[in-house]
Amino acid sequence: MTTSWLENSIMARKAIARGKQTSVHSITEGSQGKYHYVYGPYAAPVLTVDPGAEISVETHDAMEGRIKSESDRPSEILKLPFLNPQNGPIYVNGAVKGDCLAVHIKKIVPRGPQPVGTTCLMKEFGGLVGTGDTAMLNEPLPEIVKKLHVDAVEGVKWNDKITLPYEPFIGTIGTSPEIEAISSLHPDYYGGNMDLPDVNQDSIIYLPVHAPGALLYLGDCHATQGDGELCGFAIEHPTVTTIQVDLIKGWTFRWPRLENERQIMTIGSGRPMEDAARIAYRELVRWMASEYGFDELDAYMLLTQAGRLRVGNMVDPKYTLGASISKHLLT
Amino acid sequence: MTTSWLENSIMARKAIARGKQTSVHSITEGSQGKYHYVYGPYAAPVLTVDPGAEISVETHDAMEGRIKSESDRPSEILKLPFLNPQNGPIYVNGAVKGDCLAVHIKKIVPRGPQPVGTTCLMKEFGGLVGTGDTAMLNEPLPEIVKKLHVDAVEGVKWNDKITLPYEPFIGTIGTSPEIEAISSLHPDYYGGNMDLPDVNQDSIIYLPVHAPGALLYLGDCHATQGDGELCGFAIEHPTVTTIQVDLIKGWTFRWPRLENERQIMTIGSGRPMEDAARIAYRELVRWMASEYGFDELDAYMLLTQAGRLRVGNMVDPKYTLGASISKHLLT
Amino acid sequence: MTTSWLENSIMARKAIARGKQTSVHSITEGSQGKYHYVYGPYAAPVLTVDPGAEISVETHDAMEGRIKSESDRPSEILKLPFLNPQNGPIYVNGAVKGDCLAVHIKKIVPRGPQPVGTTCLMKEFGGLVGTGDTAMLNEPLPEIVKKLHVDAVEGVKWNDKITLPYEPFIGTIGTSPEIEAISSLHPDYYGGNMDLPDVNQDSIIYLPVHAPGALLYLGDCHATQGDGELCGFAIEHPTVTTIQVDLIKGWTFRWPRLENERQIMTIGSGRPMEDAARIAYRELVRWMASEYGFDELDAYMLLTQAGRLRVGNMVDPKYTLGASISKHLLT
Amino acid sequence: MTTSWLENSIMARKAIARGKQTSVHSITEGSQGKYHYVYGPYAAPVLTVDPGAEISVETHDAMEGRIKSESDRPSEILKLPFLNPQNGPIYVNGAVKGDCLAVHIKKIVPRGPQPVGTTCLMKEFGGLVGTGDTAMLNEPLPEIVKKLHVDAVEGVKWNDKITLPYEPFIGTIGTSPEIEAISSLHPDYYGGNMDLPDVNQDSIIYLPVHAPGALLYLGDCHATQGDGELCGFAIEHPTVTTIQVDLIKGWTFRWPRLENERQIMTIGSGRPMEDAARIAYRELVRWMASEYGFDELDAYMLLTQAGRLRVGNMVDPKYTLGASISKHLLT
Repeated sequence: MTTSWLENSIMARKAIARGKQTSVHSITEGSQGKYHYVYGPYAAPVLTVDPGAEISVETHDAMEGRIKSESDRPSEILKLPFLNPQNGPIYVNGAVKGDCLAVHIKKIVPRGPQPVGTTCLMKEFGGLVGTGDTAMLNEPLPEIVKKLHVDAVEGVKWNDKITLPYEPFIGTIGTSPEIEAISSLHPDYYGGNMDLPDVNQDSIIYLPVHAPGALLYLGDCHATQGDGELCGFAIEHPTVTTIQVDLIKGWTFRWPRLENERQIMTIGSGRPMEDAARIAYRELVRWMASEYGFDELDAYMLLTQAGRLRVGNMVDPKYTLGASISKHLLT
Repeated sequence: MTTSWLENSIMARKAIARGKQTSVHSITEGSQGKYHYVYGPYAAPVLTVDPGAEISVETHDAMEGRIKSESDRPSEILKLPFLNPQNGPIYVNGAVKGDCLAVHIKKIVPRGPQPVGTTCLMKEFGGLVGTGDTAMLNEPLPEIVKKLHVDAVEGVKWNDKITLPYEPFIGTIGTSPEIEAISSLHPDYYGGNMDLPDVNQDSIIYLPVHAPGALLYLGDCHATQGDGELCGFAIEHPTVTTIQVDLIKGWTFRWPRLENERQIMTIGSGRPMEDAARIAYRELVRWMASEYGFDELDAYMLLTQAGRLRVGNMVDPKYTLGASISKHLLT
Repeated sequence: MTTSWLENSIMARKAIARGKQTSVHSITEGSQGKYHYVYGPYAAPVLTVDPGAEISVETHDAMEGRIKSESDRPSEILKLPFLNPQNGPIYVNGAVKGDCLAVHIKKIVPRGPQPVGTTCLMKEFGGLVGTGDTAMLNEPLPEIVKKLHVDAVEGVKWNDKITLPYEPFIGTIGTSPEIEAISSLHPDYYGGNMDLPDVNQDSIIYLPVHAPGALLYLGDCHATQGDGELCGFAIEHPTVTTIQVDLIKGWTFRWPRLENERQIMTIGSGRPMEDAARIAYRELVRWMASEYGFDELDAYMLLTQAGRLRVGNMVDPKYTLGASISKHLLT
Repeated sequence: MTTSWLENSIMARKAIARGKQTSVHSITEGSQGKYHYVYGPYAAPVLTVDPGAEISVETHDAMEGRIKSESDRPSEILKLPFLNPQNGPIYVNGAVKGDCLAVHIKKIVPRGPQPVGTTCLMKEFGGLVGTGDTAMLNEPLPEIVKKLHVDAVEGVKWNDKITLPYEPFIGTIGTSPEIEAISSLHPDYYGGNMDLPDVNQDSIIYLPVHAPGALLYLGDCHATQGDGELCGFAIEHPTVTTIQVDLIKGWTFRWPRLENERQIMTIGSGRPMEDAARIAYRELVRWMASEYGFDELDAYMLLTQAGRLRVGNMVDPKYTLGASISKHLLT
């Protein structure tokens, strides 16, 4: 049975399949074959579906499983640009530039033998260290690897005293740019490596379509993550992630949007961080104006009192923030 | 009766008065006389108290009540540097550089005739417009004033359809710098105009002491506010705000800290916004290391999974973010 | 006759052809055929050459000649992502990942009928306006087009009173990323849209090689430009640009480097602008250490006294700065 | 004899004394007595003069001479907020809020026994290291002190091979804010610690007046400095600096302006660095419009082709950039 908010979601009201499941598919490691490290139109689709298709996807962790032991040294194992492997692209019939791809995230479960979770410190990467972008002369921190038991029910076992709840989400998801092929480490206007915990089970993400078939990619699921993904590695883990795609013809906007039971959210990525916040909030102002009847300046003033910001990541090539407002203030 | 978390607060455990009320005082508009527009050591104290003193304070709104009607034009009425009037300074006996002033916020209630709340758009100020700092050639937005009915029980009446809950907090609070006198529009290492909604009732803010007597200032209470205070004006309102001050000898740190029932928080202010986030999170790493037994790098990695960020303001001369962690992860 | 500095250039000392011309080629509009809008490995080379090849290239202006009249409206004519057309890619035999491609810029001359130069204001683009990245609610500026007479000898005729010298350079030049295909509007580690006036006649730019054959692209020549390319459009013009390519095996570094008669320069691109400056200066510290015998911290301190910064652009998706030091301080 | 550009300077044309010397004064270490660490209105003037006064000033170096040996450790000796000692304040008769103070810098000569110059690395300070603002967890660099022979004729002896020319300027100069007292480490709208090499001999800096008497402070002279003052310490040295002050009634603007023989310059300070550039360029657009007859958008477009940016510092609490245009393009 569908929950009531889904029946009233934008997807249910506007998309071709009305949010109904019309077919069932899967992408396994085997059927995926080669994973991808860029979001672009140059790879052949691994699956072609109609709107309404439910797809279960075997995702790798962001290190493609290559960090196997706590004695591994990430900077010796992980080599640019072959990081953050993505499933896809999935071709959605009928999708053309100017449309919107709706992706309902139905379920995320850990996959593979324990310890299934990994986090680490890697040289010149993270929010509190000098990096390739924020270039410093200081010595890097030591590299540390932590392997963790992750269970959908029992949670994430941090140590003997601390267990964190299993709050999984998709770290990287998006459509293909029209002619660009951009590293899966980047978040941008088409989605990508947003690392935003709101992209979780029982939410719908709306992605602008730029290439024929939309060409959906996804991967990089996190078992849990704090705001900002501070050291650059959440609890990375392989999963089976189940999504359902749908297509909204002619709904055009610049940056990803999201809906869940309680709120609508716009997602901006940029540097410096205030630019990500500006993008997210401006998109929300525009959304409130175009579809909920607000005057733009009135929306601007109301968000001043009731808007919410979530910092997804403060470590990727662009930082990602989500701006949201409660649905009950929109009606 | 004191609630149990207060009995176990840092204030209760470390401060001179153990968080107990030892005397009662008030600062009225009359006893305040001249309000102040800088945080500095050059003004005479309006009140001198011992640790443990409870003080009720009649605060002005950030415009000192000068925006009286929706037909007012803010840029004609509000003139730098005479904005954001502050009560104080309050001299706390025994406080010297290197100590920490604990301020328990006990109660905030609206004051004065309705409509008691004000928000507005002012030229060249706000998060989605060109400003004096982010200088643009675009035309400014029109100026708009909104006066609102604010009631501690009924909430903030935005319009006929929308009423927001009354969630008041102190927008501007801090100690005096040692020799600087800084505009009350600024947030920085001593507190000031942080506009952080967590500085609310039933929380304790810990402020580093730089000048003899600490010289506490406060003002600028908001009836409610969204993350980032987007247009620059929350629901500004005059209040009677009741605080209790206490003194922790020799507890030295660089940036304001906060504690409530659920979490501890560090507060950073800076530009670009990622610098505010870096400051807040580094301070939290250090706090977890110095007082909760964490290894610094382990704290860094745990915050990656369980840290929370709150964007206070994205409109002031420095942006303010609070980084926090749940208390139950600290034990 | 070669000038003496060229005979002592890094190219002359280290490259396969020692900076000598070994063959002569040209890329005309006709032989180029389709121009490119991304820097990537997915396009077929238009020319394959050996190190030492001199190539004259018919470049388009950044608007591909589509702004023909001062009554045109740029935002109606220029459509993302089909902007900033590039010649190439040029495949250089023997070049592999980890090598360095040296490009000696020999001559830039205007091409086509007058008025050959174009600059303009376009909505939501420029250094002093809200943009897609620095998102604002302000109304955009009006769009303005200016067509100018540009002559290599007489200069750039701004108006009846002002004539600017013809100081041409290549706005966009770089090698292909390994697997990414990035918009030619971007500058990054491989070069691209740096808009740095030092990339001019009689300089050598050193570019890291990531893809087999290096895959050199170039275009977007400017007749003159101020620091920062403030409104986003320099004096854009089509040219015949003559370069000579050479190959330095095994010279690996992260960001483009440049050499002319007087100085060596490292080029960083990033946001916020301080990150571009940090990248450029750190690369220069490392270059001084690895090839000129400096201790890293001594280089850091000497650059504090004698380093120079040039702001290339403050309008592109990343800002570009060049950090340099006089050659006479290196020996 | 005055040089001709001075006779045509804005000071000569608009100021009360027409740029003529009307009296001669000096501030010695003895007459200064206590140096100051804030720019504010709370200190008593050490000298009161009329417009046209020439004043020779004995400045300290930024460390007040406390770094005496290359074995000193800066972080043990230098303690906030008692850094960057300033001479003044100088009260200029007749100056009131809304006026402009013109300061002609006539001569800077080193003062005291050799080695008179000092530069150093200090923990958590500098452009390529984590700092209190750009907070990192990396270990700080080692501290290094370098003492140098500085001579007005022979230059700055860096080591046996490298001698840099003596190109002195005033690192910190400004008027008092109206009610704020801001650390002399800060640059802002009133001047302060701009560290901009253009504030040198034979230039005139124009400073907005906010407090009665203008209350001019100055200090922190550098024997030479690269763009950005990369490690945070130029060649710091004590000097005798000779200035001449004049007063332009009713010339009101927001940020410091500068004039020399070749160009006019506007000075912006902010973070991130692009905000400093935006401020500087917007002020220059406005100056060109208000006094040189340009249409604002035409000035914006001309600066795109002919504007120049100088990065003063990339290490202070705000970064400082100067934007300039050649005088010959203004007529």
